[in-house]
Order: sequence, then structure tokens, then C-alpha cells
Amino acid sequence: MGEQVYLGVDLGGTTIKVGICDVEGNLLTTYEGPTGTEHGADVVLENIAQYARKIVSESAYTWEQVAGIGAGIAGFMDIPEGFIKLSPNLGWRNVPVKKILEEKLGKPVKIDNDANVAALGEAWAGAGKGISNLVCYTLGTGVGGGLIIRDRIYQGFSGMAGELGHIPLVPDLEAIDCGCGKKGCLETVSSATGIIRMAKEAVERGEHTSLALVEHIMAKDVFDAAKTGDETALRIINRAALYLAKSMAVVSVIVNPQRFVVGGGVSKAGDILFDAIRKYYYECAQETAQEGVDIVPAILGNDAGIVGAAGLNLRS
Amino acid sequence: MGEQVYLGVDLGGTTIKVGICDVEGNLLTTYEGPTGTEHGADVVLENIAQYARKIVSESAYTWEQVAGIGAGIAGFMDIPEGFIKLSPNLGWRNVPVKKILEEKLGKPVKIDNDANVAALGEAWAGAGKGISNLVCYTLGTGVGGGLIIRDRIYQGFSGMAGELGHIPLVPDLEAIDCGCGKKGCLETVSSATGIIRMAKEAVERGEHTSLALVEHIMAKDVFDAAKTGDETALRIINRAALYLAKSMAVVSVIVNPQRFVVGGGVSKAGDILFDAIRKYYYECAQETAQEGVDIVPAILGNDAGIVGAAGLNLRS
Repeated sequence: MGEQVYLGVDLGGTTIKVGICDVEGNLLTTYEGPTGTEHGADVVLENIAQYARKIVSESAYTWEQVAGIGAGIAGFMDIPEGFIKLSPNLGWRNVPVKKILEEKLGKPVKIDNDANVAALGEAWAGAGKGISNLVCYTLGTGVGGGLIIRDRIYQGFSGMAGELGHIPLVPDLEAIDCGCGKKGCLETVSSATGIIRMAKEAVERGEHTSLALVEHIMAKDVFDAAKTGDETALRIINRAALYLAKSMAVVSVIVNPQRFVVGGGVSKAGDILFDAIRKYYYECAQETAQEGVDIVPAILGNDAGIVGAAGLNLRS
Repeated sequence: MGEQVYLGVDLGGTTIKVGICDVEGNLLTTYEGPTGTEHGADVVLENIAQYARKIVSESAYTWEQVAGIGAGIAGFMDIPEGFIKLSPNLGWRNVPVKKILEEKLGKPVKIDNDANVAALGEAWAGAGKGISNLVCYTLGTGVGGGLIIRDRIYQGFSGMAGELGHIPLVPDLEAIDCGCGKKGCLETVSSATGIIRMAKEAVERGEHTSLALVEHIMAKDVFDAAKTGDETALRIINRAALYLAKSMAVVSVIVNPQRFVVGGGVSKAGDILFDAIRKYYYECAQETAQEGVDIVPAILGNDAGIVGAAGLNLRS
């Protein structure tokens, strides 16, 4: 029957991406199609099943070689039950994904949230390959996180482990409201949203910055300005890096990972961001939590979700 | 050959405590004798071996029934190798404890640090029995911690996981130096040392408090004063509880344990402390990290170290 392979599904609001991985996490082939969110959960799940059968039928592998299927989904879920409680971007409430897909496909199905799945992808076959204990940050609209402990995703008691964007860090006098209802969470500063907010505030304050000339400031505009030496942009990136590093210092004395992997759109700022994160981490963290610990960029990009989803049946 | 039993060794600077546990973590019998620290590591390890053989020979169990031996030790160590790098209170440097004890006793030996072992004791057979994911605080001279993840001690990459006393929490303007070299760590406030310091400062400031009449203030004096309604003492205990709760809110979004177990001398303050910790936790923590999560006192007291050590061969 040949080697076993694993299917990974990255279920987004507009596109479903499916991929086949081997047992080492190598992504062999991918396929994508529309999610069909507007037609409701039944249609979306049928689309997943069709794309899964299609990618395999068009590959060098047989359906018998598929050992399991995993899906990464944004939302609140009962992970062991594979049950979506609420997914705002899909408009889902109480959808038994695992049960339905297992019936349709006749294979073991596991689901997890998108940040955990991305962390597993990087741990299994990306920037964390070979590292048993690591923590992955995804810096996007918010700040997501995932913990890999002893080679497996660690979800915690109620699936809240690795909610790194909600570590409270910013001192009261500077803290702003977070979408979660608390104040001063990491993601109010170190997300794309936080970076854009700080840039707009600087422009409104009348700071002398090239960002004043940008009509709709995006995080990338701030990175680009920083690379030309714009002091406001540099200060904003340093602040995002400082709080990220402070959060890593906190994570270190709690879970002491060997590696921090940082991905997501903001991580594309590159060395200018990573050099600052490392500098502040070495200042903030306990010395004993520094030896042999490194901070590296994610390398799988958008594929992390597919690869990690494929890994769910092996490492969750 | 009868049921298997496990030996636990709590290696203190003055006393070695040894106990026999069954596979459920029930402590069947204990024995203690002098450590003999002043005679050096060879003598101490020989004492451990003698006490271990003695407790078994005087029990209803045979040496053949002993499935493994564990030891909890204060210090820096390579846990997998069972090698003590430095133990200030024993005056040890580079002592291969596991190797020597295995040679002397002919049984598998595991070691771990005292805070992790206490956490395992509570998780296995104490206040955390039946809970797979929990975090244990030991509030004593400092603040120690231990993480139990999927029923086993989690030590992290370099044994630094669960160093909860060094979570940086106190705002800069109020932060004081910690023994670790950083400022504002949890243990500067929520340890016995922190409580005594705050009490002395209050007296020096001339606050109207019954603590002014105590010659050498101990943490227990502060609890006793609080129970009589002394406002200074109440404020100090509230502050210790507030930062402990803040640290739990941070731990929740990182590892999301089902239960927090709080032990050590300071936890003897009882309801006056625990009511405050719970109140502040519900204020500080993410709502989704509250449902089904509780904060309870440790119940094994000084036996946690022996029981947890006995459990090392099953759960580390």
C-alpha cells in the first residue's frame, strides 16, 4: 500500500487550501478552492471532502495511503471532540466538524485552532524542526501563539494555552483597551494593528516622519520607513519588539522553550525587527533562560497552516 | 513478588526524609535521619542509600518490590542525567547523584528540583489528584513553582520551566531588586520574605499597626494581625495576593492549567489569603481562562516532597 501520507486543510473564510504531507512533514502537493462560506457549514464541509479526494486522486498517492486528515480553523472549539463552538469568520456555531468529515471521508480527522496549527507546522517541518519544546508567535492583525511541548501541540485545559497576544504587559499609564476586554495586552502593541495605530498617532501628533505622506498606513509602510532611517518608524518597531521580547522573558520562566519562532505578516520586517527582539530579550530574560535559546523567523509562510494541520494526527 | 512500590527521598540540608509510596501515591511509611552535609557528598549519598534500605527492611515490603527511587534536591541540575551542577545549601558542585545511587541501590533513580517535586506530589496524590494540567506555587522564603502537563512534571528546555517566582510583574516605580538580579519579580512581593519586608517598611513609616509591637516580624505575625482586622496587615496580604493572582492570569494565557495549587508556609494564612487571590484572579484573568479553573491550597504539607520524589519514576 506504500508509504503513509497525511492531509492538511487550512480552512479560511474565502479559500480552502489542502495539502499532502509525508510522515516527515514535507509538503508534497497542494490544491485550493473556494470555501463557499455563504452557503453554510454543510456545503463548506462537502467542499473540504471534495478537495481532499481530488488532491489525492490527482497525486501519485492512493486514498488508502491517507492515514489521517487535519484541519486548522479560526474560532472557539472543543479540540478533543473536534467540535466548533463559534467561528465568527465562518459564521458557524456548534458544528461537529470531526464527526461530519470522518463520515464523509472514512479517515481519522483532527481539528485545532489556526495559531496552534501554524506552530505545529513550523515545529514539525519548519523553523523549529528537531526542537521538542518551542513557542511560536504569529504577528498579524492580532498576536497568536502556539506551544509545542515534547513535540506535540499543547492546548491546555480549555484550549486557551498559547494565547500569547493576551499576556498583559503594558504599564497602566500607557495601556490601551484590547479587543478581549482587558487593557495592555501584548497584541495592542506588537501586532500589525498596534503598529499601524502607533504610526497614525505619531502622524496626528505632528511628528516629523515620512509616514505623514502615506494615505492609508499599513505595517509594511512602517517597516519601509524604518529601513530608510525614519526615526518615528524605528521607534515604533522598537516598541513592538520590546514588548514581544518582554513577553518572551515571561514565557521563558514559565515554559522555558528552547526556541521562539516568529511568523505572520509583521515578521516580514526582517532583521530590523529580529535584531531588536533579540537585543531586548537578552536584556529582559533570566540569564539561565538564555543559554542555548534562540529567536528565529518562521520559514513556512502561508504553508505553515496546511503542514501543521497535516501533522495533527501525529502530533496533537 | 507483590505490588510495586516507589521510594521518595526529600534531601534537605539537615535532614533526609525517605518514604514508601504505592502506585497511587499513597504514602505508606516514612523515615528520617541526619543528612550529614558536613561530611560531603559521598557520605550524604551513602546515608540516603542506608535510609532507603532501612525503611524498606522495616516495612511490610521487600526490596524486590521497589520499582524505583526518586529524590528532590534544591539546586541547579541536569535533570535527565541526574547530575547536580550546583547545590548551594548542600555545598555540592558536579555530583552525579543518579549514577552513584543507582550503583549503590541497583534500582532506577531519578532526581528533580524541590519545587517540581512538590508540584508532582500534590498532582499525584494531593490537592491536584485527578487533574492532568496544573500549576503549583510554593510560597516560602522565595516563590517556587512547578508545572504538571499531561500528568507529568514539565521541566522545559534547561530545567527553568515553572520558575514562577521570577515572573516580572511589579511596575517599575514600585519594583525592588530580586535576588536573581532582575527587578519586580513576583517573589519580591508574594513570598514570606516579601511580606516581612512590607511589614517592616510599614512599621518604619510609622503606620498605626499592631505589627509595630512585634520585635522580629515573621510572616505568621502579619497573618495573625490581619485576622484581628489590622489594616496594615490586611493591605500587605492583599498586595501579596494581588501579584500572585496577576501571575496566575499570565500563566493562564500561556499554559491554561485547570487548577492552581498553592502551598508553602505563606499558604497557611488560609482563607484570608485565598479569598483575596480568587477575587483578584477573577478580576485579572481572561474570562475564557476562568471557567472550570480553581485555586486551592496544597494539602500534603511537608510530605509533598517525599511523595513527589517517589512519583518521579512514574511521572517525569
